[in-house]
Amino acid sequence: LISKQPNTGTTIFTVMSKLASEHGALNLSQGFPNFDCSPILTELVNHYLKKGMNQYAPMAGIQALREVIAQKVSDLYQVHYHPDSEVTVVCGATEALYAAITAVVHHGDEVILLEPCYDSYAPAVTLNGGVPVYVTLTPENDYKIDWNIVKGKINERTKLIILNTPHNPTGTVLSQEDLNSLAEIIKDTNIFLIGDEVYEHIIFDGLAHWSLLRHPILKERSFICGSFGKTFHVTGWKVGYCLAPKQLSEEFRKVHQWLTFSTVTPIQYALADFLQDPQNYLSIPSFYQEKRDKFLACIKDSRFTFTPAKGSFFQCVNYERITDENDYELAIRLTKEIGVASIPVSVFYHKKNDFKILRFCFAKDDETLEKAGEKLSKL
Amino acid sequence: LISKQPNTGTTIFTVMSKLASEHGALNLSQGFPNFDCSPILTELVNHYLKKGMNQYAPMAGIQALREVIAQKVSDLYQVHYHPDSEVTVVCGATEALYAAITAVVHHGDEVILLEPCYDSYAPAVTLNGGVPVYVTLTPENDYKIDWNIVKGKINERTKLIILNTPHNPTGTVLSQEDLNSLAEIIKDTNIFLIGDEVYEHIIFDGLAHWSLLRHPILKERSFICGSFGKTFHVTGWKVGYCLAPKQLSEEFRKVHQWLTFSTVTPIQYALADFLQDPQNYLSIPSFYQEKRDKFLACIKDSRFTFTPAKGSFFQCVNYERITDENDYELAIRLTKEIGVASIPVSVFYHKKNDFKILRFCFAKDDETLEKAGEKLSKL
Ligand SMILES: CSCCC(=O)C(=O)O
Ligand SMILES: CSCCC(=O)C(=O)O
Repeated sequence: LISKQPNTGTTIFTVMSKLASEHGALNLSQGFPNFDCSPILTELVNHYLKKGMNQYAPMAGIQALREVIAQKVSDLYQVHYHPDSEVTVVCGATEALYAAITAVVHHGDEVILLEPCYDSYAPAVTLNGGVPVYVTLTPENDYKIDWNIVKGKINERTKLIILNTPHNPTGTVLSQEDLNSLAEIIKDTNIFLIGDEVYEHIIFDGLAHWSLLRHPILKERSFICGSFGKTFHVTGWKVGYCLAPKQLSEEFRKVHQWLTFSTVTPIQYALADFLQDPQNYLSIPSFYQEKRDKFLACIKDSRFTFTPAKGSFFQCVNYERITDENDYELAIRLTKEIGVASIPVSVFYHKKNDFKILRFCFAKDDETLEKAGEKLSKL
Repeated sequence: LISKQPNTGTTIFTVMSKLASEHGALNLSQGFPNFDCSPILTELVNHYLKKGMNQYAPMAGIQALREVIAQKVSDLYQVHYHPDSEVTVVCGATEALYAAITAVVHHGDEVILLEPCYDSYAPAVTLNGGVPVYVTLTPENDYKIDWNIVKGKINERTKLIILNTPHNPTGTVLSQEDLNSLAEIIKDTNIFLIGDEVYEHIIFDGLAHWSLLRHPILKERSFICGSFGKTFHVTGWKVGYCLAPKQLSEEFRKVHQWLTFSTVTPIQYALADFLQDPQNYLSIPSFYQEKRDKFLACIKDSRFTFTPAKGSFFQCVNYERITDENDYELAIRLTKEIGVASIPVSVFYHKKNDFKILRFCFAKDDETLEKAGEKLSKL
């Protein structure tokens, strides 16, 4: 009767986390760490709670947090956003994505999605009356983007392209050449961009993070969505942000103010303080590279095949040498029978393409990774 | 170029709070208390922060919080919602409103708003491609709703009616007869309802809260939006909820999961514990009634005229005996010149009808109310 989205079920993350807990399985499915954040950070939140910072924050976020975010971007990439008018703090990157989509997508507009992609993009587009247009990336060539195919999808109804680097679920990253190619194909259009860059600090092997904001042509039409949840091991705090040029930020804020208005005040103050020490985020790449390497070492004797993740805290593996089950069935069976939960990568494709790939989250303590490796190696 | 909402400026709350702080004025404009919450509550949050409850909460909210919300509603109104499928925790009532509107409003649908009304309703409708249809309530007859006029606005495109009780900004409340009249005019339609009931516990003079959920015909088509921010003096914590029958809750959750996915975990645990003691919310009506009475006593020698608020933490006053300025100019002048910030009620009307009314928030410590009263009495 009322449904705008008859086919939207429960997210796979909820399904698999629930199944994992019902079966006492090691939960390498939903993307969150099983270790805690720095005690400095929780103590900072406590400090501001007790200090009475418990009423509405300003709609765009507290000044100190907007400033330190702008400072971080300027330090890391020598690119400048004005904290007053170009940085907006929101309830997690999920809200940032939804608000940016709502800000630009009008009824009937087309939005190009490169799949596999995070499961909120398409429903957020559809809820705003937009039409997702898919470019399908495949594991055969390590999910490399053929920009000519992207170009072929562009027409006068194309309003937006959503990019994600480092990439969930595949662990790939955009290169500087990717940014150049993208700039080439959109420079004579009015297309907007979203850069979902929540894994910005989770990047390995000395690779640079090629944020969309590092290319001037891309920057001027991009909404860059970031988050502290993944970086600081606090996925349950729901503080994210959006960087965008003034005019785009104005449109973004017009939506944010009606969506949630503002974001948890004491946590904003705590994050503003914590970000003052760059070591707190500069230490993240090596921390997670060790996690990735640990996990890969633990599954090296398994029959899975894989390309090591270049970023994000996910490792995709191919299981063709083990079974020809479909990935959804296998993910469920592994959870129930061997006690390791994962995410079937088909869920990130709109037609549920099954390339026989499972995604494991390695944001787990070493013991969990070892136990998971042991169980998976028996397959 | 991209704007869906060219006319949406900065909210009046941001404008007036900023002006108040620039001029060192007493801020009786934006609706938030200038006193702190219970130290038990902040200590509970600290407890769960330190306990490591810092990762994603379940999408619909933690079980314990959903259960205690359902329990509260059952205790207070003998009406039952299933905690698993009919209660959803979200990032503040603002998100609850936006998600409920998104869940039911399709492109071209009409939504009946009774103005004056909270400033997020119309933009949330418009962003979803809906068309606001207004019923204008006026101070002459104390903002009483003429249900025949509401009935006259209904046609086959009408999808939703948004109600608010206790009412911001007017301080009025719905009666049982209002619910009956509403049921009568919608019972043969497919119209949905939103009950914005964030001031549920801020109601005076022994009046009952006539929540939409207390009428069976209304309940089955209502999204009831509640919040802990107003009740527990923590407007900056952004935890609200939506109660709706199973099928409606399913649609609501489909939207919520893409809007923000989940809500701050340690705060959810703290609220679940705090709600275990009903005294924590049962004490609120008398607490705020004292505030209202204090404020009214402080302005009794002023030249304002008013009907005492029946609910909410706002008092509207008519200033016709003082000046014929428009309310927006006057609110700005009072902030700058006499040092008391308020909200001009015209901002809650889509055509900015000026009935010479200002809204004062009395969620302030007694000293602030006294000082404000003194200043206002000099006019
Ligand atoms: C919002 S739950 C999903 C977390 C996540 O980013 C993932 O597992 O991909
Ligand atoms: C979200 S800021 C507005 C607070 C409020 O409810 C009001 O002042 O009316």
